[in-house]
Amino acid sequence: MTSTIDETASSVADSPARALVCRGCGAEFPLAAQHACYQCFGPLEVAYDPAALARVTRAQIAAGPQNIWRYAPLLPVGQDPSSRVTLDPGLTPLVSASALGAELGFTAPLWVKDDSANPTHSFKDRVVSVALTAARGLGFTRFACASTGNLANSVAAHAARAGVPSIVFIPGDLEQGKIITTAVYGGDLVAIDGSYDDVNRLCSELVETDEFEDTAFVNVNVRPFYAEGSKTLGYEVAEQLGWRIPSQVVIPMASGELLTKIDKAFTELVEIGLVEAPAGGWRVFGAQSAGCNPIATALHNDTDEIVPVRPTGIAKSLNIGDPAAGLYALEAVKRTGGWMDYATDDEIRDAIQLLARTTGVFAETAGGVTTAVLRKLVASGRLDPSLETVVFNTGEGLKTIDAVAEQVGPTYRVKPSLRAAREAGLLG
Amino acid sequence: MTSTIDETASSVADSPARALVCRGCGAEFPLAAQHACYQCFGPLEVAYDPAALARVTRAQIAAGPQNIWRYAPLLPVGQDPSSRVTLDPGLTPLVSASALGAELGFTAPLWVKDDSANPTHSFKDRVVSVALTAARGLGFTRFACASTGNLANSVAAHAARAGVPSIVFIPGDLEQGKIITTAVYGGDLVAIDGSYDDVNRLCSELVETDEFEDTAFVNVNVRPFYAEGSKTLGYEVAEQLGWRIPSQVVIPMASGELLTKIDKAFTELVEIGLVEAPAGGWRVFGAQSAGCNPIATALHNDTDEIVPVRPTGIAKSLNIGDPAAGLYALEAVKRTGGWMDYATDDEIRDAIQLLARTTGVFAETAGGVTTAVLRKLVASGRLDPSLETVVFNTGEGLKTIDAVAEQVGPTYRVKPSLRAAREAGLLG
Repeated sequence: MTSTIDETASSVADSPARALVCRGCGAEFPLAAQHACYQCFGPLEVAYDPAALARVTRAQIAAGPQNIWRYAPLLPVGQDPSSRVTLDPGLTPLVSASALGAELGFTAPLWVKDDSANPTHSFKDRVVSVALTAARGLGFTRFACASTGNLANSVAAHAARAGVPSIVFIPGDLEQGKIITTAVYGGDLVAIDGSYDDVNRLCSELVETDEFEDTAFVNVNVRPFYAEGSKTLGYEVAEQLGWRIPSQVVIPMASGELLTKIDKAFTELVEIGLVEAPAGGWRVFGAQSAGCNPIATALHNDTDEIVPVRPTGIAKSLNIGDPAAGLYALEAVKRTGGWMDYATDDEIRDAIQLLARTTGVFAETAGGVTTAVLRKLVASGRLDPSLETVVFNTGEGLKTIDAVAEQVGPTYRVKPSLRAAREAGLLG
Repeated sequence: MTSTIDETASSVADSPARALVCRGCGAEFPLAAQHACYQCFGPLEVAYDPAALARVTRAQIAAGPQNIWRYAPLLPVGQDPSSRVTLDPGLTPLVSASALGAELGFTAPLWVKDDSANPTHSFKDRVVSVALTAARGLGFTRFACASTGNLANSVAAHAARAGVPSIVFIPGDLEQGKIITTAVYGGDLVAIDGSYDDVNRLCSELVETDEFEDTAFVNVNVRPFYAEGSKTLGYEVAEQLGWRIPSQVVIPMASGELLTKIDKAFTELVEIGLVEAPAGGWRVFGAQSAGCNPIATALHNDTDEIVPVRPTGIAKSLNIGDPAAGLYALEAVKRTGGWMDYATDDEIRDAIQLLARTTGVFAETAGGVTTAVLRKLVASGRLDPSLETVVFNTGEGLKTIDAVAEQVGPTYRVKPSLRAAREAGLLG
């Protein structure tokens, strides 16, 4: 499947995207279903026509729909609404977290960007909408992914809405909530007896077979498009703050790609003049779990060598032991003067409750990781509580209820009578 | 607690609400924390100043926020944004369900109003935002409810966001997802050894005690305000259809109140001239489960006597055996020429999968009830598939995954190798 978007879908040919560019050697390739450089095997990224981006205005965005497609003029696909394969994710709430900030000693505003509000309740709806819109434009007729759970939910739901067959690959030990929420949409669901990294490797092999020639793996053969969807999180935060970039952002890391794309979004907004950089620039912080911390460990060891790990722990949606964008995440964090840290399972459980109690946001384990790391970064002095900060919650607590099921529950058990209520102490 | 809104909160005194009116004898009372008529013990409802409602324009609504508060000029509270106790629910997707419509034989458009997209993933966020805004205006300092689950989630989350103590009462046998998603917010959670109707009775007693004088039970002592929040579902459907009312709506029934308020919203929109009624009017259809069908049974038996039942079955969020608004739901369905039906647990499970597979919407059991009843109504000829129809999904499948956990799962289990994938038949 080597057809380019230009050849197969004139409806997306008017995008500002110009080419796929190798992040390693800089070689350029046409916009097609290709994810690795033919020259150095480096990963590819979408490059844009600067003049096209520079024409985008705030008013143009404000006049767009109340979802990620308001940023279509900054994306490689979806300029024509009829070309979109989408659940219309995005414009999720930026929640003021003043009570959380007060507990952690913040004197500047603290915000939670709550992406559990997306249609399948994680940020993955953003990347899947962009990837599958590219996939259909490129002529693919089956949608697929390798997933730690949230991506599986999103691909299966998008495929159901679009009426396109899907085949989703997951590690066999996922949380039941994520398995059911994929299977219910009726596509094929393949449980692999291994880790996410095993699943990913298998998908990289399958994509080369004749039998999968018609199949777009959102995070393999159309990965460059997929990754661009994460930029919308950065755009939204800036727009929701009244076209400002926050001084500090705390972002969970699995492959590390989300962190790099939020940074890329901020950079683009400044370059094209839609936003001014904050005084002192913005600082990017990365969060991992103690059970899967290869990127943070490399930073702490002051090395660019990311040593793959065999992931453990409850933050399964972040359990990528061999993170594809780890080097680029390291680069962004170092360049901006940020830092990375990681949280234990107990710290994650505590942080899920802390976030829920102070903000009303019930996060999945990944959100617990980010909140726990926020607390650590303040305690260690790496993150400045006198600067405006945004923490990203990328998923929904309902998908990982087992993480807190033993921590929380009814505070009273009472028979249905006033007398029983009095005896239980409910009446003082 | 008999203070009126006018006395305690001038910020909400400019609402179009005029009084509380008895649905039984028509007696009027000031806007206060009162839910039953002092003369005939009938239920109270908010009445509006017709002239105030008639001043509301489409442009005024369109200029409002992207949530229920765009309809504040049609609500009894929340005119001043700073007065709102809210997670900003609403403007949930109206999803085109063309594939579902095709399977059921529709020739007219079929839509799913997907209220699982609300902050705590059910329509209850709408009623809670209105009730708690009233409660704070009336001077209450603790928030409470009797709940079948979704309401518990919403009250606990709203209280956490607002920094107000909460105490939530639930039947002890609720789905774990709904228990955890309440408890995680850190308020008090009281599990009652009994049915929802037992819980509700206990709360009606507690509200009269001195110890609960400071406590607003959203669906007891501020119930008239609470119920008005459901009107926003009707307003949104009309606005999202381009200011049109659909010819047919299918609505799940627990107390029956949601159905009456969607009908009330349509009636208001026509009366104030924002929308024209469809040719032939609109028809309202009610959906219950076979395990709790007192309202539908009364209709089928052609009687106005609703005989309370002891609920059973998987659709727990609809399990109210003694439905407070049942008579009013009967009235609306008869007046508009609609009908009611009910679905068995197996039909509910099938319908959850049908809806997910054809629309990408994963509904909780209540959404399965509504979809199953839609199918029955078409099959029996009660609902006309040549007329535009909207089906309401009021909750999220993740909260009731046990309902389908034995029906769906991985379609393949494979070791992580190309050879194993081939042997499993994945390569044709």
